[in-house]
Amino acid sequence: MTRLVNLLGSALPIIQAPLAGVQDHQLALAVMRAGGLGSLPCAMLDGAGMEAQIGALSAHTPLPFNVNFFAHKATVDDPQQQQQWRATLAPYYAELNLDQSAASSGAARRPFDDTALACVRRFRPKVVSFHFGLPDAALVEQVKATGASVLASATTLAEGLWLRDRGVDAVIAQGLEAGGHRGHFLSNDLSLQMGTFALVATLAGAIDLPIIAAGGIADAGGVAAAMALGAEGVQVGSAYLLCPEARTGAVHRAALRSAAAAHTAVTNIFSGRPARGIVNRLIRELGPMSERAPAFPFAGSAIAPLRSAAEALGRDDFTPLWAGQNVSTLSDLPAGQLTAALARGLPSLAAD
Amino acid sequence: MTRLVNLLGSALPIIQAPLAGVQDHQLALAVMRAGGLGSLPCAMLDGAGMEAQIGALSAHTPLPFNVNFFAHKATVDDPQQQQQWRATLAPYYAELNLDQSAASSGAARRPFDDTALACVRRFRPKVVSFHFGLPDAALVEQVKATGASVLASATTLAEGLWLRDRGVDAVIAQGLEAGGHRGHFLSNDLSLQMGTFALVATLAGAIDLPIIAAGGIADAGGVAAAMALGAEGVQVGSAYLLCPEARTGAVHRAALRSAAAAHTAVTNIFSGRPARGIVNRLIRELGPMSERAPAFPFAGSAIAPLRSAAEALGRDDFTPLWAGQNVSTLSDLPAGQLTAALARGLPSLAAD
Repeated sequence: MTRLVNLLGSALPIIQAPLAGVQDHQLALAVMRAGGLGSLPCAMLDGAGMEAQIGALSAHTPLPFNVNFFAHKATVDDPQQQQQWRATLAPYYAELNLDQSAASSGAARRPFDDTALACVRRFRPKVVSFHFGLPDAALVEQVKATGASVLASATTLAEGLWLRDRGVDAVIAQGLEAGGHRGHFLSNDLSLQMGTFALVATLAGAIDLPIIAAGGIADAGGVAAAMALGAEGVQVGSAYLLCPEARTGAVHRAALRSAAAAHTAVTNIFSGRPARGIVNRLIRELGPMSERAPAFPFAGSAIAPLRSAAEALGRDDFTPLWAGQNVSTLSDLPAGQLTAALARGLPSLAAD
Repeated sequence: MTRLVNLLGSALPIIQAPLAGVQDHQLALAVMRAGGLGSLPCAMLDGAGMEAQIGALSAHTPLPFNVNFFAHKATVDDPQQQQQWRATLAPYYAELNLDQSAASSGAARRPFDDTALACVRRFRPKVVSFHFGLPDAALVEQVKATGASVLASATTLAEGLWLRDRGVDAVIAQGLEAGGHRGHFLSNDLSLQMGTFALVATLAGAIDLPIIAAGGIADAGGVAAAMALGAEGVQVGSAYLLCPEARTGAVHRAALRSAAAAHTAVTNIFSGRPARGIVNRLIRELGPMSERAPAFPFAGSAIAPLRSAAEALGRDDFTPLWAGQNVSTLSDLPAGQLTAALARGLPSLAAD
């Protein structure tokens, strides 16, 4: 645990998971002030957005933080796929009296690139984490040259070994329970995806790097369990979604508090890549997995107008309600108090 | 933990999972002599087989044990489904020079019935456990009237509550990592299936009965993690498969020891119900899930001759290689030593 705390720079080996789209620097700051490692998700930001977010966080505190990027291979939108997808969604547009021309065409998620690298160089975050593998080796080298610790997600043993061989400092073991996008990158075969319990034990046994457990950890008992399985730290996402400092939307918060939260599914319909969220109308009617959904991230643009219109009516039919499988203990606790509550599951740092 | 030990009658809250088809009383006996609760799987036995197995165990020891039954609704084989399935398998029969008439027509798995009840009444096992829900209430009452503690598997919160409301004494939380047949019985929607980490935490938080964690637990760290999540005991299956006392076949043992064991999948092709096993040729070519597979348990009879012929050639192409997701630490340790090793993950009984 000590070696992980040294890599992270935070007092506690507890990472607030980057929650793209539902947080800004406020959540990260609250976690950091309680001794955890705050994260800023940058995949949905352009250069100016990154600068603004990282700048705001840096202006508030000298404490270390994590900046998170996606590392998928950039692709181009396939017009035929997109047309087929819009045809599939047409009845919903009609239902909400929306014009198909309302759909935007921009990709909402960017992979790590030179613009992002410039940001890392300027702000020198203590930790940089990647999802969906790693950027090209040259880019990773330049990130490491800034002094940042590099973390990345593995969902299988093969991915953990691949990341180790490419020089990451610690591996995030993202179990199947985790909410949001699955980080898999070596294979799209979802049958390879392992539960948190099995994945953490497997990676901790096979890889001599700090393992950070993620997926289904929502309270002190979960933290203690992760450590017993061989993890040296945890990354917690869903538990922070109801914190007042998160920017989780109203329909998302309502769903998390409802009985519906007991049923999540891994779906590709909101972005084109498999991600876990609470089962809602669109998942029930088109998913959870659909071959019609355009490749990541191009499934999302045609859904955005539906989401906005429905949310304005208080409906979550078209909202990606990202959540992990274990939402039984979620509360509205401020993020600092939640971080302190999670820390009670850690073995004493002194005893390490 | 004390209340579970009282229910089980064993010194340790460690249950050797019933492993239908790959064990007899020898494995149970070795576990019992080390303080764990041995289990006898009865779903594939007729009345005489049950009497022989339970009789042999009782003759060796006065220690308490668990007798396990399936509780599925008995169905009849659909000739059209069966014909379609045999047509699907025909190329494999041709490859192995087998005649289709070699396929047996008998159902290999029986639900709990009056014959089984008579056995329970005669031998009065300390524990009776059920998979796939519970038999009719009248049968359950008669089992309880013998003084047996009744356990059953839940794979979701809804199933856990359903079992609690029907009077079980403890709930086995069977996480998605678990090998062999999934125990789900309220819904066939596999997206409802939860990882062990999330399921144990959810059930322990919602149900005031002892929760027994199952799925992915293979060493002392796993036991400690399960207890940290709120379980009061564990049920361990795959870890016992390589024990000398198990009757695991040669190709199954070889697969468990190989790199192939890192990839398991939930498949319905071997029995008609979803079960987790190591991905082999038949799963790759027809599965993992196939709509052509006849309903449980009628998918198995047409595969049996293929399995026998291939195994005679040392091939595991048609063998159900049941295994959980966490097989990274499996060893050939005798079952008693394995039980003692698992027990090192328990908090001291005295401290409870």
